[in-house]
Amino acid sequence: MRIHKTVGSERNLILRARLDNGLRKLLTHSSPSLEKLYDAMTYGVFEPGKCLRPLLAYSACEAMGGQFDAADGVACAVELMHAYSLIHDDLPALDDALVRRGKPALHVAYGESAALIAGDALQALAFESLAQPSAVSAGIRLQMLAVMARAAGPAGLAGGQFLDMALAGTRPTLEQVAEMQRLKTGALIEASVVMGAMAGGATVETNRFVALRKYAEQIGRAFQVRDDILDVVGDRVALGKAVHADQHADKSTAVSSLGLEGARHYARQLLLGALTALDAFGPEADALRQLAHVVVERDL
Amino acid sequence: MRIHKTVGSERNLILRARLDNGLRKLLTHSSPSLEKLYDAMTYGVFEPGKCLRPLLAYSACEAMGGQFDAADGVACAVELMHAYSLIHDDLPALDDALVRRGKPALHVAYGESAALIAGDALQALAFESLAQPSAVSAGIRLQMLAVMARAAGPAGLAGGQFLDMALAGTRPTLEQVAEMQRLKTGALIEASVVMGAMAGGATVETNRFVALRKYAEQIGRAFQVRDDILDVVGDRVALGKAVHADQHADKSTAVSSLGLEGARHYARQLLLGALTALDAFGPEADALRQLAHVVVERDL
Repeated sequence: MRIHKTVGSERNLILRARLDNGLRKLLTHSSPSLEKLYDAMTYGVFEPGKCLRPLLAYSACEAMGGQFDAADGVACAVELMHAYSLIHDDLPALDDALVRRGKPALHVAYGESAALIAGDALQALAFESLAQPSAVSAGIRLQMLAVMARAAGPAGLAGGQFLDMALAGTRPTLEQVAEMQRLKTGALIEASVVMGAMAGGATVETNRFVALRKYAEQIGRAFQVRDDILDVVGDRVALGKAVHADQHADKSTAVSSLGLEGARHYARQLLLGALTALDAFGPEADALRQLAHVVVERDL
Repeated sequence: MRIHKTVGSERNLILRARLDNGLRKLLTHSSPSLEKLYDAMTYGVFEPGKCLRPLLAYSACEAMGGQFDAADGVACAVELMHAYSLIHDDLPALDDALVRRGKPALHVAYGESAALIAGDALQALAFESLAQPSAVSAGIRLQMLAVMARAAGPAGLAGGQFLDMALAGTRPTLEQVAEMQRLKTGALIEASVVMGAMAGGATVETNRFVALRKYAEQIGRAFQVRDDILDVVGDRVALGKAVHADQHADKSTAVSSLGLEGARHYARQLLLGALTALDAFGPEADALRQLAHVVVERDL
């Protein structure tokens, strides 16, 4: 596997700067009375996260030969959507998690009501990011919005959240776990790649587009499997959230279904599948290749 | 004031049937495991509400000379967004309301976690409704999506929700109440009219478009003022929710700022302003005129 020369920490710094810039514009408040709401939203968004989804969007755009600025709206949208999902996931009504990314969860820092509303506002802002004027044509942006809406809704992220809750305390089958993970984590990761590819000029259902979607499916599954592994073997400080949280709540994970070694093997298979999907691409997809490794090998 | 012959209960029945049909399509689940989530969403959407926002969307489309089918996506979107906002508003973290539209609130019927997620899913579905293929051009639908995103986000509905919470227990000024109401209730009502007008062919910033937005601002404020009045004098059974709920929670209302008679006078002024804004329209805006009366004179 060749590593393209634009892949690396300098490239990631440039992309994170683009992302931060876009997010700060979207999170600029218009009324002093709303300052605290924007503070809460900003607290939930600007934290040292992996920025996996925005990096996927930029890298998929690049793989299709597009410029980064075409993917700015997508990168912000997927990070905002991800932030909202974590905030609501951490609420007392769901995971009741006290720590997120190494600091108090939003509902702990700002109160439950503010966290609920900040999450709601961030979801809307994610759609606003896609609807804003950009170099991408109206027709393509509308298709992206449809992709984002499906990925966030009952047949996507929200549906996965619901299944995760519904499966807690049961002994789920591997199929049930797979469906839950596909919706809860996979849908947004897949949408990040798909929308990034569209921003880069990909035409839906062409060979390259289908290949990128296949890549996205594989790493989406790999991401959740790795999460499940880290929940069992992870270092709580590095992870920045309570290790064993899912285990304690008797939730459905790949580890509880396959065992630790089985889950590790499964993650490696998924990585191989993701890399194979990119076979038709040259060095323009090296960033995507590296991200696939990051997903499977990360420690937090 | 002339009442156009298409205004009336038969017309409303036709429009409600269009709306129901569109909503049922959007609320059709794809996986048996998600049935309960869709049940919860459907419970929160299909209740004998006023359907004010969809009727405003259809009527604004009609006022601009458009056909009803152009506004179907907008009508569904605003009803879904409204339903989500009520569901989250009723959660224990916010109003902790037990009754909504005459029956147990969603969190009472399905549990708090399911209500939280169902609300999240409905917001996403509202955007999906606008992004779906329709007779309206991609450029216009993209503009609608931007309007919807702003109306739902931190400078709209979510912001109003936040201010409502922040002002509780204070003695707010009239300006503070007005800002809260403009965001919490006005933004979505205004968006319903604006998006309906766009679906009907209105060009942004033309005289007719500006007139419709002015109309929408007035009835948006009138709606909340009437709500505040009904919270003090309303019949609990007719209203289908706990009367005096806002009063008990010491929340900011037009009545607490202006007194009961002052609030009534204010509502009449707003009605007059809404009707005046429609002066340049003929009978094609009679449905909007009637809806303005409904808003100010309703008992529930």
